[in-house]
Amino acid sequence: MFNEETRLAAPIRWGLVGGGRGSEIGHSHRAAAVRDHLFTFVAGAMDLSAARCKDFGKSLGLDEDRCYPDYATMFAKEAQRDDGIQAVSIATPNSTHFEIAKAALENGLHVICEKPVTIHVHEAETLKAIAKQHNRFFAVMYGYSGYPMIHQAREMVQRGDIGEVRIVNMQFAHGFHSAEVEKFSDGAKWRMSPEVSGPSFIIGDCGTHPFYLASLITGLQVSSLLCSKQSFIESRSPLEDNANILFKFEGGAVGTLWQVR
Amino acid sequence: MFNEETRLAAPIRWGLVGGGRGSEIGHSHRAAAVRDHLFTFVAGAMDLSAARCKDFGKSLGLDEDRCYPDYATMFAKEAQRDDGIQAVSIATPNSTHFEIAKAALENGLHVICEKPVTIHVHEAETLKAIAKQHNRFFAVMYGYSGYPMIHQAREMVQRGDIGEVRIVNMQFAHGFHSAEVEKFSDGAKWRMSPEVSGPSFIIGDCGTHPFYLASLITGLQVSSLLCSKQSFIESRSPLEDNANILFKFEGGAVGTLWQVR
Amino acid sequence: MFNEETRLAAPIRWGLVGGGRGSEIGHSHRAAAVRDHLFTFVAGAMDLSAARCKDFGKSLGLDEDRCYPDYATMFAKEAQRDDGIQAVSIATPNSTHFEIAKAALENGLHVICEKPVTIHVHEAETLKAIAKQHNRFFAVMYGYSGYPMIHQAREMVQRGDIGEVRIVNMQFAHGFHSAEVEKFSDGAKWRMSPEVSGPSFIIGDCGTHPFYLASLITGLQVSSLLCSKQSFIESRSPLEDNANILFKFEGGAVGTLWQVR
Amino acid sequence: MFNEETRLAAPIRWGLVGGGRGSEIGHSHRAAAVRDHLFTFVAGAMDLSAARCKDFGKSLGLDEDRCYPDYATMFAKEAQRDDGIQAVSIATPNSTHFEIAKAALENGLHVICEKPVTIHVHEAETLKAIAKQHNRFFAVMYGYSGYPMIHQAREMVQRGDIGEVRIVNMQFAHGFHSAEVEKFSDGAKWRMSPEVSGPSFIIGDCGTHPFYLASLITGLQVSSLLCSKQSFIESRSPLEDNANILFKFEGGAVGTLWQVR
Repeated sequence: MFNEETRLAAPIRWGLVGGGRGSEIGHSHRAAAVRDHLFTFVAGAMDLSAARCKDFGKSLGLDEDRCYPDYATMFAKEAQRDDGIQAVSIATPNSTHFEIAKAALENGLHVICEKPVTIHVHEAETLKAIAKQHNRFFAVMYGYSGYPMIHQAREMVQRGDIGEVRIVNMQFAHGFHSAEVEKFSDGAKWRMSPEVSGPSFIIGDCGTHPFYLASLITGLQVSSLLCSKQSFIESRSPLEDNANILFKFEGGAVGTLWQVR
Repeated sequence: MFNEETRLAAPIRWGLVGGGRGSEIGHSHRAAAVRDHLFTFVAGAMDLSAARCKDFGKSLGLDEDRCYPDYATMFAKEAQRDDGIQAVSIATPNSTHFEIAKAALENGLHVICEKPVTIHVHEAETLKAIAKQHNRFFAVMYGYSGYPMIHQAREMVQRGDIGEVRIVNMQFAHGFHSAEVEKFSDGAKWRMSPEVSGPSFIIGDCGTHPFYLASLITGLQVSSLLCSKQSFIESRSPLEDNANILFKFEGGAVGTLWQVR
Repeated sequence: MFNEETRLAAPIRWGLVGGGRGSEIGHSHRAAAVRDHLFTFVAGAMDLSAARCKDFGKSLGLDEDRCYPDYATMFAKEAQRDDGIQAVSIATPNSTHFEIAKAALENGLHVICEKPVTIHVHEAETLKAIAKQHNRFFAVMYGYSGYPMIHQAREMVQRGDIGEVRIVNMQFAHGFHSAEVEKFSDGAKWRMSPEVSGPSFIIGDCGTHPFYLASLITGLQVSSLLCSKQSFIESRSPLEDNANILFKFEGGAVGTLWQVR
Repeated sequence: MFNEETRLAAPIRWGLVGGGRGSEIGHSHRAAAVRDHLFTFVAGAMDLSAARCKDFGKSLGLDEDRCYPDYATMFAKEAQRDDGIQAVSIATPNSTHFEIAKAALENGLHVICEKPVTIHVHEAETLKAIAKQHNRFFAVMYGYSGYPMIHQAREMVQRGDIGEVRIVNMQFAHGFHSAEVEKFSDGAKWRMSPEVSGPSFIIGDCGTHPFYLASLITGLQVSSLLCSKQSFIESRSPLEDNANILFKFEGGAVGTLWQVR
């Protein structure tokens, strides 16, 4: 974790794409980035509306001229500054992650991208290749991995405290989308739209978290899986709001993942 | 539940097949039967060894001549007594349930049978038909259904407290067969033997309990299922010691069942 | 709870004292008030700084001229409007509740006041008398009482599901003040200052919640109590950051309350 | 824990005082003693009735002539045998522990004694002195200390995983004596009798367990305490069936213990 050796001479200059006023996750990015003074928040393209971005950015303490109307402008303008951003977080709807992340990496920025990372596997592989080519970090925002309990679990597994791992059961279940809240909530609405959210609602939005944590904790890799999906709110179809996945891991362990929202 | 109106003029005269010394479940049958004075324990064919049955039965307070060498003898002899047993519990290994239960019903006894009730569905249907023909109860020993919490849950569902049931997740997971304990334990050994246990270990031995409770609580009936089974202790194969089942219920609910031992 | 019969012809015009930018609880008041459209947020005196109140109030959609420099001005000006506020929430530090609530009631406003309601018992009794005299509601913000689980628990007790209540154990334990966070957090700093927070930190700040819920759920009234307090962070002394209270209730029940932060 | 180095050339020859048929705890002593083959069960004075002891002892596989009518006879006779017992467990009602343990130690036996160890502190100190003088173990049966979770907790505290221990909350709460079960149960009856049970019911019977575990896990010693006791079943008075204790530990930590049965 963070310690004196990892403390930087100066904090990383950091910008944010998406995560504007009313966003479910924008506050988490901003609060977490500045908490330990490793990052400083200096620029943002946080809203589809340039005016709203400016208004909100100023209320957060950004300079007015570093509140940008869109990410392309932000990347271009910041690249011209001596004190331009070095890293960017992408907290936009799922289907836009690829093009924004690609542009950020090609502009020499380190990238912290929201999950689900991309819609297609080949897109993720492309980003990985570009990051390597430009020698930049490409990180995905699995925020739960920061909890001490996760690291304790991982250490216990690695130290052999629980013996060989045979069974990995995962859950990410909550209920605040159990009714058709997308009628009232913009944050819910885009998640139910295949063009914006991609081919999955709950698996991409929630399931990606425990799926990552399972590998982090156990070190196991999935070899095959089977998925059962439902749309309890029918208007969400073909996007699922409940799913159960059965896994086989390399080496013989098995697992399950239940996600619902 | 039990109340004054259900109190009987005299307790039911009750016998036990199986459940001898060292049995995992025999004590539960005996202790539960006499707890509220609705049953009185008067006869037993509790062991493959007639001598051990007699020794154990006497230590439990049975008359020596009502400690029988086998169930057939018990049913025949008791039928000749004015004070013969009226009901019998069957706590033997799985594969013997059918023939013993059939004999008991045909001898005019009410039957309380351990789970899993039979190996084949048609056997269970046969028992149901015989019980109806002879006007006798045929009950299966889903002991957990007696817990007040289960009845509270059922009432809550029926009263509509939790709305429409969409998801039914069940678990019966414990760990005391996680190592090859059947090397040391007779009670474990027969459970791992297909000829005695039938075609399943953990689903029959454990999974039947939450499966029954799910229907009891929700009133829902399964329409289709998919099962993934493992034998983590390889010598148990083809009997499984871990299983995950995905369910679809009539009406659209879905569910899961994880069982491991 | 809310239903068609309780829906009002028009939402209650509502103002907020305290709860400005950076407040721990202000957002909860605003979000909860407007959630079911029973209130409309129209005025605020939310900050010791008039400029910050105006800036923040405007960002929340208030009219500039209804962002007031202090509560006295707000009560006076709003009283002159045909569409002036009808109710006010008080979300200021503890020691100011009494004078603000008194002024609000005397200005004819219904009051929703943060806990702990006042520093002294006689102050609370004075507020109760004034509210009665002016025929106004005086409510205290025990927000947890809104959870369905609390109401379910209350119904279960009242219906007799759990029999006579003998034991009432309460906890409000969390850890985010376990280190000396008041060095960095304004929201924590005033809580550790006896002049602002009153003679208690954790009992007033946390313990009041479960204490209220216990009476709400069980209907029992405390007849005597004993308290053990500690200041694990020594600089907080004489304010406690851990406390255990033993209670006797009228009728013979006993209870405990542990609170830590 | 047990390993090859601690394995003995031959198991310890072990006897049991108390713990006869119907005892709540006798089976635990016998099952635990023989589980890892470090002890062999060879003698018993398990019942106030010599005949019942003989009948029960034989059913457990003891030689008839090593089923003794009382502990004094057992200690005397066994001392004359080349293969006499080396250790004894005492599973009798509380008030008899002292005299039996004293006699056992003076007969050169290692002793495993049920809790609460004695009625008076000076009795425990006497036993400690005698054990030292005779170079014998005197162990108290805090059986929960064998759970791996307890050892994991202790290691975590010792390794500093949770930092300095400030708060130690303990509970031993169950409900199967919440009604006046002593009317029906011999095992419950003696526990409610001050002459047999001593001056405490629930603190001695249950509270001693978590109290010991707290010291085992944290290494902390109590410096002062305050206790609130109740007899919810009035006929138990002056013995308590509910108690809450507040502790101060040396070094500044505080704690609580709730016990109810």
